[in-house]
Amino acid sequence: KTIAVLPGDGIGKEVTQGAVSVLQAVGERFGHQFTFTFASIGGGAIDALGTPLPDETIEVCKKSDAVLLGAVGGPKWDGLPGHLRPEKGLLRIRKELNLYANLRPVSYYAATAETSPLRPEIIAGADMLVVRELTGGLYFGKPSERSTRDGEESVVDTLFYKKKEIERVIRLAFQLADTRRKKVTSVDKANVLESSRVWRETAEEIAREYPEVTLEHMLVDNAAMQLIKNPKQFDVLVTENMFGDILSDEASVLTGSLGMLPSASISEGGPYLYEPIHGSAPDIEGKNIANPIAMILSAAMMLRTSFGLEAEAEAIENAVEQVLESGLKTSDIALNGQKPIGTAEMIEEIKATILDNQA
Amino acid sequence: KTIAVLPGDGIGKEVTQGAVSVLQAVGERFGHQFTFTFASIGGGAIDALGTPLPDETIEVCKKSDAVLLGAVGGPKWDGLPGHLRPEKGLLRIRKELNLYANLRPVSYYAATAETSPLRPEIIAGADMLVVRELTGGLYFGKPSERSTRDGEESVVDTLFYKKKEIERVIRLAFQLADTRRKKVTSVDKANVLESSRVWRETAEEIAREYPEVTLEHMLVDNAAMQLIKNPKQFDVLVTENMFGDILSDEASVLTGSLGMLPSASISEGGPYLYEPIHGSAPDIEGKNIANPIAMILSAAMMLRTSFGLEAEAEAIENAVEQVLESGLKTSDIALNGQKPIGTAEMIEEIKATILDNQA
Ligand SMILES: CC(C)[C@H](C(=O)O)[C@@H](O)C(=O)O
Ligand SMILES: CC(C)[C@H](C(=O)O)[C@@H](O)C(=O)O
Repeated sequence: KTIAVLPGDGIGKEVTQGAVSVLQAVGERFGHQFTFTFASIGGGAIDALGTPLPDETIEVCKKSDAVLLGAVGGPKWDGLPGHLRPEKGLLRIRKELNLYANLRPVSYYAATAETSPLRPEIIAGADMLVVRELTGGLYFGKPSERSTRDGEESVVDTLFYKKKEIERVIRLAFQLADTRRKKVTSVDKANVLESSRVWRETAEEIAREYPEVTLEHMLVDNAAMQLIKNPKQFDVLVTENMFGDILSDEASVLTGSLGMLPSASISEGGPYLYEPIHGSAPDIEGKNIANPIAMILSAAMMLRTSFGLEAEAEAIENAVEQVLESGLKTSDIALNGQKPIGTAEMIEEIKATILDNQA
Repeated sequence: KTIAVLPGDGIGKEVTQGAVSVLQAVGERFGHQFTFTFASIGGGAIDALGTPLPDETIEVCKKSDAVLLGAVGGPKWDGLPGHLRPEKGLLRIRKELNLYANLRPVSYYAATAETSPLRPEIIAGADMLVVRELTGGLYFGKPSERSTRDGEESVVDTLFYKKKEIERVIRLAFQLADTRRKKVTSVDKANVLESSRVWRETAEEIAREYPEVTLEHMLVDNAAMQLIKNPKQFDVLVTENMFGDILSDEASVLTGSLGMLPSASISEGGPYLYEPIHGSAPDIEGKNIANPIAMILSAAMMLRTSFGLEAEAEAIENAVEQVLESGLKTSDIALNGQKPIGTAEMIEEIKATILDNQA
């Protein structure tokens, strides 16, 4: 299996290095050969090659069976014009690989529950999957520009969707719900936006194909409240790109395990792209304190989803849980008074546990 | 002083009735004469007059010194086409009265703290003001319609702002911050949207007029996280219409006092409009269990902001706090095992306390 590795900026390098070495341990234990090709994206690519997404990187990704991405961005590049920003590399790779859906499982980990900002009884047992549309809406609609209207400076962005794009991601949400607790919450703003009314109608249409799955509609403002008030009510939550950006980040802090949450971005023909939910965190770059678990669990998602290697994925997930339960934590999830371990130590612990469990 | 009262739908009637009778008690105690003119909006107006916002209602509002609004909407009208929905009445009154900013103070109440979904140490002492742009952005931009592109069904909404509209609301946020803890958090999505880049530049420009006030920029996805992780960091949060809809609702559940949060919508020349944050809650309509406090505190905001009646506003706020501290609560804020009181009883308690405090 060939894997493109795009470390990106900030802590991206440290955490992708962790995923690669954990995958090597998995290869060793289960007798697989993974081939890694490194390529550049984001701020580093701007510095070296003058573009946040070199053509060569796109080629490497397209030829690979899966892509692992660290994170992009940092204050160094914040002043650059829109088309020359690290984030543009991320947005373009999504478009180039046709990654129309971003999947973010948000689960409760008993071992890190005490770092959740929510009361224990609200969050214990929550287990949801946020499915975010990733290649449409306000992110890519044209026009997106400044102009003069009635002689006054003005600016416009465009929320555009083809109905087919809406259908595709909602159908995926139903398929996924069918393998889970069989409930889809479709989030929109149908009382204001025409695009949301099309979204809602489309959800109703797709729901007819899945009689086993319950469909519920929720307005985005209400969803922002319900995620906090009662996160356990959600199984699969599906929504458009911008709402999904906001709600999936909101959901990711509920369990207190932001540094542990992986994501997968899905296309029709592959390759899929796997990345942690957290960003590049330039302030802690190179300090050996980043939590590598989100990236390592993203590699586990890759093994399961792209390669069908279920036992191998579980080997990683179990090792992560064992290490946490043994009390070893990076500083973001360590409790007051607990001595945290570093990024490199966490990676070593997880590797060692994977290999130990073989015996 | 003349006040337009728009009860609207669901629990709107019960809670506006409460505000009116509390204002009468204030008038009695302080020797003011308030004149109330009732007018219709929302679903009720659709049923009676075929439109969610009759011209007569607009006239009544424009001629009044302030407007009190209950809430609009309900499942009965959910199937109607976009232009004939209760919410359209709300959107139109905002436009007609030029209510360009919605102000939502979110404060922590010790008396209801135990109903917060957040851990006490996270939420205790939080005190923020969300300033939401209310007459621009995706809510009003054109086109907002279905069409066919490349032979495929598609749909578009438009996020449009004049720079002046952005300036106006950001300047208001700075003015308000100047009377508070002197910090403005401007929320945008400048790494993706051109409108957000204009927003951010404009915030920088206005900040120069207020050297005493600190400006901080925050991406909307990060803001959705930070509100939960560390709500105390916020003083004044200002953002565009759709982001504001989502974030202000998110903020409103943090303290556990959604049924107690008022809001004011501000225009350049008045009248201003005051409404509770909660919706019409049709499921509990007429059951005498709605919490009237958000509407009553909205009336207090009106006394302070539109009429400059500070002592009178405080008389209401103090009475509310006293009643809650005495242990009387409506069912939404009562703790398990506590016997709640009804809407009418809560209104009577607050009135009685206002009059008692005179002596
Ligand atoms: C970096 C940014 C462009 C990106 C997005 O908004 O999609 C990020 O927030 C994410 O969620 O992956
Ligand atoms: C009812 C709806 C149109 C409205 C809005 O989105 O503005 C409401 O959610 C609000 O926040 O006042």
